[in-house]
Amino acid sequence: MTLNLPRTIEWIDGKVRLINQLKLPHKLEFIETDDYLRIAEAIRKMEIRGAPAIGVAAAFGLALAALKISSERLEEALKELEKAAEILASTRPTAVNLFWAIERVKKAAYEARSVNELQRRVIEEALKIAREDEETNRKIGEYGEKLLEDGDTVITVCNAGSLATSYYGTATAPIYCALEKGKVVNVLVMETRPYLQGARLTAFELKTAGIPVKIITDNSIGIVAWKKRIDIAFVGADRVTKDSYLVNKIGTYPLALVCKEHNIPFYPAVPTSTIDMEHSIEQVVIEKRSSEEVVNIYGTRITPEGVEALYYAFDITPPKLITGFITEKGIVYPPFSKNLKRAVEH
Amino acid sequence: MTLNLPRTIEWIDGKVRLINQLKLPHKLEFIETDDYLRIAEAIRKMEIRGAPAIGVAAAFGLALAALKISSERLEEALKELEKAAEILASTRPTAVNLFWAIERVKKAAYEARSVNELQRRVIEEALKIAREDEETNRKIGEYGEKLLEDGDTVITVCNAGSLATSYYGTATAPIYCALEKGKVVNVLVMETRPYLQGARLTAFELKTAGIPVKIITDNSIGIVAWKKRIDIAFVGADRVTKDSYLVNKIGTYPLALVCKEHNIPFYPAVPTSTIDMEHSIEQVVIEKRSSEEVVNIYGTRITPEGVEALYYAFDITPPKLITGFITEKGIVYPPFSKNLKRAVEH
Repeated sequence: MTLNLPRTIEWIDGKVRLINQLKLPHKLEFIETDDYLRIAEAIRKMEIRGAPAIGVAAAFGLALAALKISSERLEEALKELEKAAEILASTRPTAVNLFWAIERVKKAAYEARSVNELQRRVIEEALKIAREDEETNRKIGEYGEKLLEDGDTVITVCNAGSLATSYYGTATAPIYCALEKGKVVNVLVMETRPYLQGARLTAFELKTAGIPVKIITDNSIGIVAWKKRIDIAFVGADRVTKDSYLVNKIGTYPLALVCKEHNIPFYPAVPTSTIDMEHSIEQVVIEKRSSEEVVNIYGTRITPEGVEALYYAFDITPPKLITGFITEKGIVYPPFSKNLKRAVEH
Repeated sequence: MTLNLPRTIEWIDGKVRLINQLKLPHKLEFIETDDYLRIAEAIRKMEIRGAPAIGVAAAFGLALAALKISSERLEEALKELEKAAEILASTRPTAVNLFWAIERVKKAAYEARSVNELQRRVIEEALKIAREDEETNRKIGEYGEKLLEDGDTVITVCNAGSLATSYYGTATAPIYCALEKGKVVNVLVMETRPYLQGARLTAFELKTAGIPVKIITDNSIGIVAWKKRIDIAFVGADRVTKDSYLVNKIGTYPLALVCKEHNIPFYPAVPTSTIDMEHSIEQVVIEKRSSEEVVNIYGTRITPEGVEALYYAFDITPPKLITGFITEKGIVYPPFSKNLKRAVEH
């Protein structure tokens, strides 16, 4: 069974085609462009979002810029590419994958000895970044799929899905792989306030792929566990620290507590590139965001004037609540400090 | 220091004045009427909501109906009152307090030996119901207030506030009593999807009373505990079972788990009338409500067509997560099965 799911972002004959995620979940609309400035705009306006997807978009943006280079002198060509890189890098301030992808493509460009070679190398590197992301997710999917039995219901939060990556997603990859193998897997998605990525994006992509999916409000995690409506939890990861703490979207930690209490296995899906062996949890700053993003819903203010929201964008799940980390190198089980290190290094 | 908080519902010289809660949190608007049909409409349209407040509204509605009785014959007068009772009872299908308050007022009416006495008895009984509710809450407040230290931050969910009762509320009563005693107490309110009663109602009444209040999304409970932003939890109770389980708004149980994990005291505020010594938790049916109430927010659909929500309105918190129940007879500590029974009986 082949996965029937549109690609988040694709390179097609010198053009880039990407899903306009601002139109989701109501309309599947694509943006097609050969202009890197349009890619920059798409990243800035969040028409594409999700760390790996943004990285791929920036890399493809540089490839578009390379194709349009007007100079025949390598030095000038590099200058034009640097300018594009600067514009692409300025779109989202804290997106690590964005800077990482841009640096990687630039490095490939600087190895060229002609403008022609530069163009070829830049496109190849961009395509490689996209392909590597997909392959990583595919492997996460294949390892994770073994945890699923026919008829299981998975709970997940936010969008660690295909839409956040070039394909398959991370937390969703095992579900898509299970589907390909003919297993029926149901999904409950936490809606994920304030941006509702679970309701808008994850529900959209799972439904599109033909997976039975329902949403729940974020505060329903306790009762659905109590009612035995969930069998396993797959979540994404913004970062895993060297002391094995999981930093992810708010709601992940309460979900992990509920899972522990009800003996429901709890697995973050984590490309090893997300494991930060440099920093411990004490060193991680949890981003606080504007109250406005919480107190206004679709243009309606939900609190009285003068009452603001306290809004941390992420929370922290301690290793004792984690059953295992699903990585592209296999599932990492406790003792995590030793085994995560090994996964990263080998 | 006197509490500066408008009364949810009041009997003033043969009229009823109540806050129109549909206008909250943006406008404090009152409905004033001498017509019991307007009271029925207010209950039906949820201009007034919250079990105890609905009970008081129905009782006051019967008092208005009694004042308008046209017949001078007792038998006819009782018929007129029965008709009003029927209309008031048909406004909300599952509101236990509604039926209880109506029965109580009717019983008082049937003890009268003249139309005049009927009118007097009905009004007195209605006022007594309102006063008893307020007194119960006031006592909960006085016991609960002792748990609060100057500078503490309380977390709460939904609206177990003054707006749900005739005055003081249940979970909010200790906060208001602390304010009266000059303590500065801060409150974090869970917004409480899907109806956002925390953001709309609890934030409104606390702010009106001058209490520093912020809201959080329901999925933020983990990170605010982690960041040591909360000192104690006060929640309401839809029901406490004879085996000491707490049935309350969804989100209560995950909050209790978070509190346990972080050694944050967790207290439901519970009038003893809410303690059900007849049923154990296995016998309680948790109400499932329509998906529509979740997937539409202010007229915007948040999921793709064909993706529905699984929506339980309440969750279940086991006694092991509960520090104590604050009742009007004092705070009940473990062993709960013995001590709750004693509180109900004495």
